[in-house]
Amino acid sequence: MTKLRLALDAMGGDDAPKIVIKGADIAKAKNPDIDVVFVGDEAAIAPLLKRTTTLRQAEIIHCLDKVESDENVSQAVRKGKGTSMWKAIEQVQNGNCDAVVSAGNTGALMAIAKLQLRPMEGVKRPAIATFLPTETSDVCMLDLGANIECDADNLVQFAIMGAAFSRSVQKIERPSIGLLNVGAEDQKGHEYLREAAETLADERFGLNYAGFVEGTDITTGSTDVVVTDGFTGNVALKTAEGTALLVGRYLRAAFTESLFSKIAYLFASAALRRVKHRLDPRVHNGAVFLGLNGLAVKSHGGTDELGFSNAIKVAVDLVEYGFIPDVQKAIAHYTTIKEQDESGT
Amino acid sequence: MTKLRLALDAMGGDDAPKIVIKGADIAKAKNPDIDVVFVGDEAAIAPLLKRTTTLRQAEIIHCLDKVESDENVSQAVRKGKGTSMWKAIEQVQNGNCDAVVSAGNTGALMAIAKLQLRPMEGVKRPAIATFLPTETSDVCMLDLGANIECDADNLVQFAIMGAAFSRSVQKIERPSIGLLNVGAEDQKGHEYLREAAETLADERFGLNYAGFVEGTDITTGSTDVVVTDGFTGNVALKTAEGTALLVGRYLRAAFTESLFSKIAYLFASAALRRVKHRLDPRVHNGAVFLGLNGLAVKSHGGTDELGFSNAIKVAVDLVEYGFIPDVQKAIAHYTTIKEQDESGT
Repeated sequence: MTKLRLALDAMGGDDAPKIVIKGADIAKAKNPDIDVVFVGDEAAIAPLLKRTTTLRQAEIIHCLDKVESDENVSQAVRKGKGTSMWKAIEQVQNGNCDAVVSAGNTGALMAIAKLQLRPMEGVKRPAIATFLPTETSDVCMLDLGANIECDADNLVQFAIMGAAFSRSVQKIERPSIGLLNVGAEDQKGHEYLREAAETLADERFGLNYAGFVEGTDITTGSTDVVVTDGFTGNVALKTAEGTALLVGRYLRAAFTESLFSKIAYLFASAALRRVKHRLDPRVHNGAVFLGLNGLAVKSHGGTDELGFSNAIKVAVDLVEYGFIPDVQKAIAHYTTIKEQDESGT
Repeated sequence: MTKLRLALDAMGGDDAPKIVIKGADIAKAKNPDIDVVFVGDEAAIAPLLKRTTTLRQAEIIHCLDKVESDENVSQAVRKGKGTSMWKAIEQVQNGNCDAVVSAGNTGALMAIAKLQLRPMEGVKRPAIATFLPTETSDVCMLDLGANIECDADNLVQFAIMGAAFSRSVQKIERPSIGLLNVGAEDQKGHEYLREAAETLADERFGLNYAGFVEGTDITTGSTDVVVTDGFTGNVALKTAEGTALLVGRYLRAAFTESLFSKIAYLFASAALRRVKHRLDPRVHNGAVFLGLNGLAVKSHGGTDELGFSNAIKVAVDLVEYGFIPDVQKAIAHYTTIKEQDESGT
């Protein structure tokens, strides 16, 4: 069996290249069948590799330039080719690696990945997806901001890709799909949502469509996948993050209010830490740009090595499951039926 | 000075008419200058009034029918006229009362209020607004679902109404206004958002526009008002609610996991209750349908008497501040400048 090869942008993320290398070390210790290629400044990478247990012989593709975390997308794309991010993605584009993982600038990663890897045949709009914590298992949500304006056709394709993502990572065979709306009733929301709902419910497409869901349903985990346009998805994701942060700040205030509450905190701190950990999905998951001819996984910029190793795990799951052929097949099936319907045959 | 008169839908809410009457009793004890009129089943209301300290002589408008909490909007509107909700709103429409407060079915209240009270001159789309908790003071957010599709003009009018709402209730003279988007950069988001941003920043309109805000900014309280379309606003509000509930469930799980965590809970429970209370804005605030020729305040259906008395307080604030004349003036000013611009004078 050929080993699975991953390109890692060694220079992306708040604490790069340290966490990238430590994260890769953890991932490789768990799964020796993966090979990793570090892309970035050799002088910074090589000494750190020596301290690892599994990566002393790992390959380095040297380059000095990198995309800054606060750089705007067009700037990053212009300076592009010399950067570790660009060269890491190139390893997937030229077939040298199976997937790329970066904790760098999200916008730049998405733009450069799209530019190099191009959308898959039949996929009109690639979409950004991630997993969010819920009361039960995690929920896959997309699009999170790649597509501001969407039509029914885009949303159906997001559903197909989201279901394949859920199958790859969560091993759910027929993930249930919810369409985000302002109410569960059929007549609610935008016209294109009703149109998308009709297609999703069409049995010929073989999707496990569960109907409209509301904002409150995202976190109850009522469906495995939640589909929405990139504008709404981005606002919902950030509102959820903001709310979790707000609760955290309220808790901190409540536990420092008085001497008694400070003592209470000593008892409560273990439980509070567990809750905090469960709530930060970005630190232990990767966001993925779905629908390209190649896999690009984004790890959270502020993640630690464990978080980065989990992003690597997402990339490995996608490769091993065969996310790309799965989506290719599903999109081809969908496109064929749609074309038949349109030509009236 | 004429007393301020409020019509209360005595039959709306999970625990009506009890909490309506108790809530009114609290409000009147604090502010004897308000008169209340209860609309609903006299046989249920009268005995409860006898037990109050301030409402033994309060007026009752008797009617037997009511809108059920799970009734759909068109059904509620059809049966309309005989219900306590309809008759309570009618008291505002015919000038007998200054505002109406109901804890009943939100959709029905909005539909019946719009039907009876009609939009104010110049207001193209009335909008639903409420206050949400933030790290600092509360933030006014609108629209929360009355208008699924919005254009730039609608959003500017929401900003004008939201600012007046914030002035009325929070006594902030020039509330800062944020426009919800997927990034703070000028080139982001829908075309109509950029158009609205340009108008909001136009000094002739006298608005304190602070720029685009993101989902995470809602809960930091970076602006006093957050403006968005009804689809996005509804999803954001419900996602925030869902996330707060999720954290609550995680906390419960963390504090019941082991004997130690159960003991920890004994110490932490007071702090946790304080946080819970701060997070449930619907229980201590009212949602208002802004932009009608009359004031309709919606109290949360599951609220207690204190929550209902706070919804009454919102109605009183709006009347006393003169929300309607304030908005009338601002909308007229806005419309005049817009018409001048369009006619090129």
